[in-house]
Amino acid sequence: MNRFADPAGFEAALRALPAPDAAAIAQARARQAELTKPAGSLGRLEEIALFMAGWQGTALPRADRVVAALFAGNHGVAARGVSAFPAEVTAQMVANFQAGGAAINALAALCGAQLSVVPLQLDRPTGDIAARPAMTADECLAALNAGAAEVAADAQLLFVGEMGIGNTTPAAALCAQAFGGDAALWCGRGSGVDEAGAARKIAAVGAALALHGPHCTGPFETLRRLGGREIAAMAGAILAARLQRVPVLLDGFICCAAIAPLVAANPALVDHCLAAHRSAEAGHRRLLARFRLEPLMQLDMRLGEGSGAAVAVHLVRAALAAHNGMATFAQASVAGAR
Amino acid sequence: MNRFADPAGFEAALRALPAPDAAAIAQARARQAELTKPAGSLGRLEEIALFMAGWQGTALPRADRVVAALFAGNHGVAARGVSAFPAEVTAQMVANFQAGGAAINALAALCGAQLSVVPLQLDRPTGDIAARPAMTADECLAALNAGAAEVAADAQLLFVGEMGIGNTTPAAALCAQAFGGDAALWCGRGSGVDEAGAARKIAAVGAALALHGPHCTGPFETLRRLGGREIAAMAGAILAARLQRVPVLLDGFICCAAIAPLVAANPALVDHCLAAHRSAEAGHRRLLARFRLEPLMQLDMRLGEGSGAAVAVHLVRAALAAHNGMATFAQASVAGAR
Repeated sequence: MNRFADPAGFEAALRALPAPDAAAIAQARARQAELTKPAGSLGRLEEIALFMAGWQGTALPRADRVVAALFAGNHGVAARGVSAFPAEVTAQMVANFQAGGAAINALAALCGAQLSVVPLQLDRPTGDIAARPAMTADECLAALNAGAAEVAADAQLLFVGEMGIGNTTPAAALCAQAFGGDAALWCGRGSGVDEAGAARKIAAVGAALALHGPHCTGPFETLRRLGGREIAAMAGAILAARLQRVPVLLDGFICCAAIAPLVAANPALVDHCLAAHRSAEAGHRRLLARFRLEPLMQLDMRLGEGSGAAVAVHLVRAALAAHNGMATFAQASVAGAR
Repeated sequence: MNRFADPAGFEAALRALPAPDAAAIAQARARQAELTKPAGSLGRLEEIALFMAGWQGTALPRADRVVAALFAGNHGVAARGVSAFPAEVTAQMVANFQAGGAAINALAALCGAQLSVVPLQLDRPTGDIAARPAMTADECLAALNAGAAEVAADAQLLFVGEMGIGNTTPAAALCAQAFGGDAALWCGRGSGVDEAGAARKIAAVGAALALHGPHCTGPFETLRRLGGREIAAMAGAILAARLQRVPVLLDGFICCAAIAPLVAANPALVDHCLAAHRSAEAGHRRLLARFRLEPLMQLDMRLGEGSGAAVAVHLVRAALAAHNGMATFAQASVAGAR
């Protein structure tokens, strides 16, 4: 159905999350025990195979059809000087994505992901969250649905990425609202803002929390007031993926912050998600701990765009290559452990 | 030349290691600064690109031709019951490698590595290191050269793997001899030995160290007395790769233990190496710390075979895809940081 009819429908979906296929997981686990290797010796690759089996509902899951959506949005709060880059860079980078020149283009091509670039009304920045809500309810719903629309029914794995100058500021606000802690706790240096910019960022997040906090009564309202279009789109895509049992590779801080209000409302939301990596952005480690997710990689990346997830696709493929492709002890006439 | 004429030639090579191409690194670094991303935002992927540039001597390095060699050997010390598996499994797994049914077959195929399976006199186990030297000088030299012979001159990246029931026992002995610490410090559970087996393993390593320690006067003699054929072959391959400036992805504990005596003699040996991962085997973390290498991944793998390195090949490819494939700020008309 890939569409949330209204805010209540979005929140109802979040309360009624499907579970993985326990039978498929059990079959995949039984297969793992027969493969020609010491039990458990492929470590997290084995866990990934079971995870994929559960969400795809098969003992032999695949990651051939990887769908990636890259959402872009502009932020009113950027005018406060919270980023190292001017706001025009959002549109310039979208042109770069469309021309194939960005990191995510190279990384998505390498992993064979089908990359969709989705600019969301770049000429209409969201409201400055330090002074007003980021979006109207209609705008927020439209952004959630723009995300949901990107989840192809036949996707075997999904990841989402983002571009939006200034968007670590709303991301930090979302984290603080969802999980507590003050503005400074969740504000990092983003794409590399200087000390003065970091101070402006913390002030903006603090003002946003003071203004909107009392009104953030649920995940929709939190996203609407403190989020942004590309942020809501990521949340919509990740929830829509769950409804279709499509497993998701989470990227970095912004991607995770986008679902922070959803996870606060229902911690099971991340059950269909793997954390691709832990980024260098300070709040990401804390956020993954709240999600109870152990990142697959720690490469000090902090680019966004879905770049970390695009790299982690290869780890999922490796897990499935071993799981699906190895011979069993019986097939190979290899003796088991004594 | 891919051949060490004699033990002295091997040790002389270790003393005269070539350095990376500083000019190529500088060119690659200058290119990184121009790519359409915040400076440093690809984290370790940027480091990998510079590393590869240095060893390949070009600002635009490639990892298309990946060469992998999988060495197998049998160990006299296995008769002491130091492994969870019987010694026959070495040959059985070699047959599995040759038939394409093992984890490394699936993982090497996924990353397009050219995999060579090299059994080393499986019907002649090395001497039991707890009672005598593992090899004669001729045997050790032959094993080193069997490794060196696998380094193709046109390889853009190399990794080596191993199979040898019982081989975490000589590996632990090599580590203790190279870097100090008692047997228990370096002995883990290998492929999953039980408590009694682990105690036998520690006793065997302790006996080996007491017997051979005073005679381990250099890396060759240490490998000869405490190593094994597949272990010496890995050491020979990694040193031969350095002489040809072929960068290497180090796999897990055994692979790293194989070069421990070489690194103790000349710490610069690992300059052409990336640590693919940190394995679940207890001593590996300690060994990587001695090597001053930060692993690219921590996936709790502990299989050997080169399996962790085969997964990390994709990270190197991702690093180079971004480095070589991205547009510059000027090309894409994107504004830089303020």
